[in-house]
Amino acid sequence: MAHHDSRQPAESARERIRSGEHTTLSYGLAPGFVQCNLVILGQKHAYDFLLYCQRNQQACPLIEVTEMGCPEPLRSAPGADLRTDLPRYHVYRKGRLADQPTDIRSLWKNDFVAFLIGSGITFDQAFNRVGIATDARYRWVLQSSCPTERAGLFHGNLVVTMRWIPHQQVVKATQVTSRFVFNHGGPIHVGDPNVIGADLENPIHGPTIGPIPDHLTPMFWACGVTPQAAAQAAEIDLMITHAPAHGFITNLRADDLCQP
Amino acid sequence: MAHHDSRQPAESARERIRSGEHTTLSYGLAPGFVQCNLVILGQKHAYDFLLYCQRNQQACPLIEVTEMGCPEPLRSAPGADLRTDLPRYHVYRKGRLADQPTDIRSLWKNDFVAFLIGSGITFDQAFNRVGIATDARYRWVLQSSCPTERAGLFHGNLVVTMRWIPHQQVVKATQVTSRFVFNHGGPIHVGDPNVIGADLENPIHGPTIGPIPDHLTPMFWACGVTPQAAAQAAEIDLMITHAPAHGFITNLRADDLCQP
Repeated sequence: MAHHDSRQPAESARERIRSGEHTTLSYGLAPGFVQCNLVILGQKHAYDFLLYCQRNQQACPLIEVTEMGCPEPLRSAPGADLRTDLPRYHVYRKGRLADQPTDIRSLWKNDFVAFLIGSGITFDQAFNRVGIATDARYRWVLQSSCPTERAGLFHGNLVVTMRWIPHQQVVKATQVTSRFVFNHGGPIHVGDPNVIGADLENPIHGPTIGPIPDHLTPMFWACGVTPQAAAQAAEIDLMITHAPAHGFITNLRADDLCQP
Repeated sequence: MAHHDSRQPAESARERIRSGEHTTLSYGLAPGFVQCNLVILGQKHAYDFLLYCQRNQQACPLIEVTEMGCPEPLRSAPGADLRTDLPRYHVYRKGRLADQPTDIRSLWKNDFVAFLIGSGITFDQAFNRVGIATDARYRWVLQSSCPTERAGLFHGNLVVTMRWIPHQQVVKATQVTSRFVFNHGGPIHVGDPNVIGADLENPIHGPTIGPIPDHLTPMFWACGVTPQAAAQAAEIDLMITHAPAHGFITNLRADDLCQP
């Protein structure tokens, strides 16, 4: 009974999404629950994609891989339906964005495998709990020039999230995120964006980037958009993902998946 | 140059094993380097086995999965050869132990995939560094009654290592091992063996088990023999593993893979 109650915020949020009541960002919904990025592919690409995730765990921490053809994530959110329970999807055909529906039931195939990949949204909530402000003005998704480890068709450079953090909170931000092993873990870089070839000119997500204010330090984490970008670059026939920042809310407590 | 020097103890140990000079336990060789359990399977079982490891990460923390047909672990020990660089192998045919060679070059097939799985030997060394004695008299591999998550053919109960630790070191042992996320991490249970259905009558490895001395507490960790047992139970045609406690020594520093 306690167990049932404890997952109620996640279930309520998914119910609002499924009914069409909530179709915008999942950021801020069901605080404390692990949010996931989604990649859906046909079985013929599943081994290579699973291997890509294994070889690039910091960018692609796998929370769950579903059984072929089954849209229910039995381990992380029994009862949920990955075809309806995300606020918005991206449909890619041969690597190109073809549609952005709020429901993918009509597209579902019996050979689909869904990969749920831990999202950094999860630790933004932990930042707030320890008093680190993560203002949307100072948070971006960027391309870097750091290569990932190839697996079959899947390859490409690491996508990163950049956050500008007050100098005196850099250590705390490193410590807090390092505990979230299944949500990208500690930063991959602190300081000069050029060291990792971060592309400040063309943010994938976030506002135009101006000069760094004197009191802030750039910090960089591996981003769950990395495997999505790799799958896009592979130009496979059909792939479905979450729309950026429109994630899947699991029943898992972020603190449960933490390291001490 | 510093980098080259730093992996020299691992390379020397593998060289002694490859030449046939060392054919016994790998325990104690190249302290500080990550040691791995090995499972080699044909490609047709690789997806299910990879998924089994993903679903049971504490028992099966993957350090590396090789390219099909390639016996060199390019990421964790470039230059090594998984057909010769373990002190002893177990060859299973339809789930039954058929041979225990020290070299598997004649058995190698072009469709083989090798899985390197982090071993608890790695953190026994960390125990010693913090002053926790891990006496071979008080260390076992046991069957438990805790089910693992199935993936395809692969399923079975969790195999555990049991160590009897002085009461006043239980907290320290929990803390130290929790850092080794890629070598089974923190304990799965502390205390009464019956809680996890540990089979004290039939240890898979270790001496006969007598009564627990008053000053010691049983502690249990997920064991890398779990996936090997699952693959045996699946009765696949041909599987090759390391012989128990005859592991593969990587170039990776255990402390590098640690969480803070």
